[in-house]
Amino acid sequence: MFMLNIRHILERARLYFGRKEIVSRTDEGYVRYTYRDMFDRVCRLINALEGLGIGYGDRVASMAWNTHRHLELHFAVPVMGAVLHTVNLRYSPEEMIYTINKAGDRILFVDPDMIPTVRKILEKLETVESVVIMSSKGHEDLGFNKPVYIYEELLEKSSSECRLRDIDENSPAAMCFTSGTTGFPKGVTYTHRGIFLRSLATCLADTYALSERDVILHIVPMFHISSWFMPYAATLVGAKQVLPGPRPKPEIIYDLIKKEGVTVSDGAPTVWIDFLNYLRTRGEKNIEPLRRLIIGGSAPPKALIKSYWELGVEVYHAWGMTETYDSAAAFTRPKSYLEDLSEEARLGLVAKQGLPFPGIEVMVVDESGKPLPWDGRSIGELLIRGAWVVEEYYGDPEATKKSFLNGWLRTGDLVTIDGEGYIEIVDRVKDVIKSGGEWISSVRVENEAMAHPAVLEAVAIAVPHPRWIERPLLIVKLREGYAGKVSKEDILGFLRERLPKWWVPDDVVFVDEIPKTGTGKFDKKVLRERFKDYYRGSGL
Amino acid sequence: MFMLNIRHILERARLYFGRKEIVSRTDEGYVRYTYRDMFDRVCRLINALEGLGIGYGDRVASMAWNTHRHLELHFAVPVMGAVLHTVNLRYSPEEMIYTINKAGDRILFVDPDMIPTVRKILEKLETVESVVIMSSKGHEDLGFNKPVYIYEELLEKSSSECRLRDIDENSPAAMCFTSGTTGFPKGVTYTHRGIFLRSLATCLADTYALSERDVILHIVPMFHISSWFMPYAATLVGAKQVLPGPRPKPEIIYDLIKKEGVTVSDGAPTVWIDFLNYLRTRGEKNIEPLRRLIIGGSAPPKALIKSYWELGVEVYHAWGMTETYDSAAAFTRPKSYLEDLSEEARLGLVAKQGLPFPGIEVMVVDESGKPLPWDGRSIGELLIRGAWVVEEYYGDPEATKKSFLNGWLRTGDLVTIDGEGYIEIVDRVKDVIKSGGEWISSVRVENEAMAHPAVLEAVAIAVPHPRWIERPLLIVKLREGYAGKVSKEDILGFLRERLPKWWVPDDVVFVDEIPKTGTGKFDKKVLRERFKDYYRGSGL
Repeated sequence: MFMLNIRHILERARLYFGRKEIVSRTDEGYVRYTYRDMFDRVCRLINALEGLGIGYGDRVASMAWNTHRHLELHFAVPVMGAVLHTVNLRYSPEEMIYTINKAGDRILFVDPDMIPTVRKILEKLETVESVVIMSSKGHEDLGFNKPVYIYEELLEKSSSECRLRDIDENSPAAMCFTSGTTGFPKGVTYTHRGIFLRSLATCLADTYALSERDVILHIVPMFHISSWFMPYAATLVGAKQVLPGPRPKPEIIYDLIKKEGVTVSDGAPTVWIDFLNYLRTRGEKNIEPLRRLIIGGSAPPKALIKSYWELGVEVYHAWGMTETYDSAAAFTRPKSYLEDLSEEARLGLVAKQGLPFPGIEVMVVDESGKPLPWDGRSIGELLIRGAWVVEEYYGDPEATKKSFLNGWLRTGDLVTIDGEGYIEIVDRVKDVIKSGGEWISSVRVENEAMAHPAVLEAVAIAVPHPRWIERPLLIVKLREGYAGKVSKEDILGFLRERLPKWWVPDDVVFVDEIPKTGTGKFDKKVLRERFKDYYRGSGL
Repeated sequence: MFMLNIRHILERARLYFGRKEIVSRTDEGYVRYTYRDMFDRVCRLINALEGLGIGYGDRVASMAWNTHRHLELHFAVPVMGAVLHTVNLRYSPEEMIYTINKAGDRILFVDPDMIPTVRKILEKLETVESVVIMSSKGHEDLGFNKPVYIYEELLEKSSSECRLRDIDENSPAAMCFTSGTTGFPKGVTYTHRGIFLRSLATCLADTYALSERDVILHIVPMFHISSWFMPYAATLVGAKQVLPGPRPKPEIIYDLIKKEGVTVSDGAPTVWIDFLNYLRTRGEKNIEPLRRLIIGGSAPPKALIKSYWELGVEVYHAWGMTETYDSAAAFTRPKSYLEDLSEEARLGLVAKQGLPFPGIEVMVVDESGKPLPWDGRSIGELLIRGAWVVEEYYGDPEATKKSFLNGWLRTGDLVTIDGEGYIEIVDRVKDVIKSGGEWISSVRVENEAMAHPAVLEAVAIAVPHPRWIERPLLIVKLREGYAGKVSKEDILGFLRERLPKWWVPDDVVFVDEIPKTGTGKFDKKVLRERFKDYYRGSGL
């Protein structure tokens, strides 16, 4: 049987798009080469890895930014049958140590600016045998207790002749760890088949529509689920790729768009909000030839969508999770007969999580697992399965058992699905407030509260309540200068005009600081613990 | 594992595109309904088929045009695990009998206008147990010796409640027979996986780009490799589908484009040449909203491409074979950096067979199986493999052995591949002329000869030659009124200006009629036999 694997993607680029370019920003400057050059270097890298003893099924870790060297690793490692573990650079040292040991990585490829981090963790890495610095020159006095190699030296010494293996499509090609808010991250492995199919699916006319004519700027970090695997999709269709290197600032993004002719890019809303602010500061209104932005990670705020529309850029929201090969589970492109919606309605639609990709299936179920109607009102947990949805956690049967239900992944997201099939996330299961048998979306309460001019940050949490089981409590950090000038009643009155009656929190607590998790999200767990007795004795 | 099957395609259309339309022209008038209606009727059909004893792996035959009922069969039969054998209506009665017996079909679904044909062959069908007339009313005095059912009566009596089976993706879903020019047709089976992947691949931005926004008119007959499986692709993305029914004439095509808003269609060049002639006769220059034509079966003549460009329609050539799920093996869309070609160069490019689809791989090899360079000059046989290329002939190990080489299908086509990877078919292996170790393309010789104003039809065949092993002989049928006014030397002189010296035939034979095969192609086999001694004793 013909195997859906990464070898095919790589060879296709060499054979048909050998002249197309890849541009990479590294801390040694810009590198510009062709797919043919990349192929040559991937072959050298395969031979180098074999020389270092890497074989089928072995784990290779990377701690790297979006550069051509990281791209080469994305091909060499899986094509030789090994597995690329992209370590999240935003992890704490403890999380890095845990995930690298859990994966059992044998070699660590690191960008030069990660050397200080490696120095901190290397002693505790149980399976790592050697370190490769992704650079062209040596770095003295590293003080590592393992052999150290230089990437470019390895390549130079290796032959560019190699025979690509035709790996079984169900073999693992990559692995990642979720950014769990509780406990240590959970690992998932991605197969050749899943990556191939996800790549194909993002080149559909009705999704990202990635094409050979596109120039794609990879803003999503390759250490975050391989930049959503978009480098594979781009290679499959032979699009020109632009890799923005370490910590791409708005001015770098702007320059790359202009100099390299970027037509499509992706990323989390924050990156593109920063970019808008940069444009505004400069009074810049022309970002041609950029035409499409794929926003994932969280939903694009309506203001962001509108601002980019005004710049002539289409904004799409791609929704997904680590377990769904990231943002290729659902996509918001209005159906043909919904294109004439009012701007406001269209904004609302684009900010939803959208329709599942072909190859992805969803259900919304109540707490007993019973399917709920698709009426845009019934709230339940989203279940998902599909051609690129993982079916287990790596080496963690307990987490697997907890998160999968008859072959469906429990997303932990509470959603509604409307009559057209558009999914909208209402809350996380663990954050929702269950009051007297009704669900209250903490997210919506927070969004409305943060619309109040005095409110900088607001968190709505469930607090145990003797009569209603749970009732919402609102924790508020005021904007500077508002302390003492705004009362609880002001905030609650504001919310009463905007929320169903029973959604309005029973009380408001003003705080100086709201606790946050390592990834910058509100730490609701800490708050729930702190305020767990707040309503004790209420209402009876 | 999540299965890539037709159930997913069907359910996706019900869930997300339930309101979108399907329009069908039948001999009882036009039928217009939604995907939701189709789903309901497919469920009834599944129940009806179960009632008739059809189960997993059973073969069901259809002899039908492009109608909604044939579309329903395309879902009901494979979704229940059975196999739809679409009988080619252009076959001779003998070929129909052979293929139906070879497939072992248990039920025969026939359009009313095929009843006379069925009457001729039914006695000889060894496995067929019953016949279903695809109609809403009875037809008296059929004189069939098997039970006869009426399609609409079967559906009416059946429940619309059904549970769809999640068939293994490697199960057969459909089968077809090649139109072999020698001996009986060879059968192939198509899997759920292959159909799913082929469908996905034709919705890519870089190929057919089929989208929810499209309205597709299925001109390729569903009895010919399921209209290239395009009804599945259209259902997957929820495009509006237009089924033109029995023998669609140009005036019907025109009406459907205008009334239903057709944006994309497909077919063999002849259909679209006839359509052009119809437009010219009527002085019609506006065929909006038609935007894209996918031409397959044979390469689109340059004049056709140009005429449609003038009408504002893009023409793409999709190349394939019965063994490659038809026209989804290669596709001609100029690469981004080739878009600025001169019109003539662009015409030449679009008329080539193009670049392989993602998921398809090719090689060009010499007679010993050695790969040849991609230089646009080296001629060899095209080998192909891929995610939707069959790996055997049905129940025919001998033909399988002959046609497959280390997992590659020998296409029987002689091609060149240029430096950009564009494939161009030069000749069929069995028709090429091997002269003194060099290959001469019979197709090119014929094309040049037919450009002579006096020549109506020309065939170039290989004739054994004592010195050169083979030399070309040209068989010519002159246009009316030219007999006696044109000499052999006129024709040869004309060719000498247009062909490499050694490609010019040694002689010309004028004939009144050129023998043709059942499918209307020149019967070169008969001609080679007739003229096999023509050069005996030459040149020594």
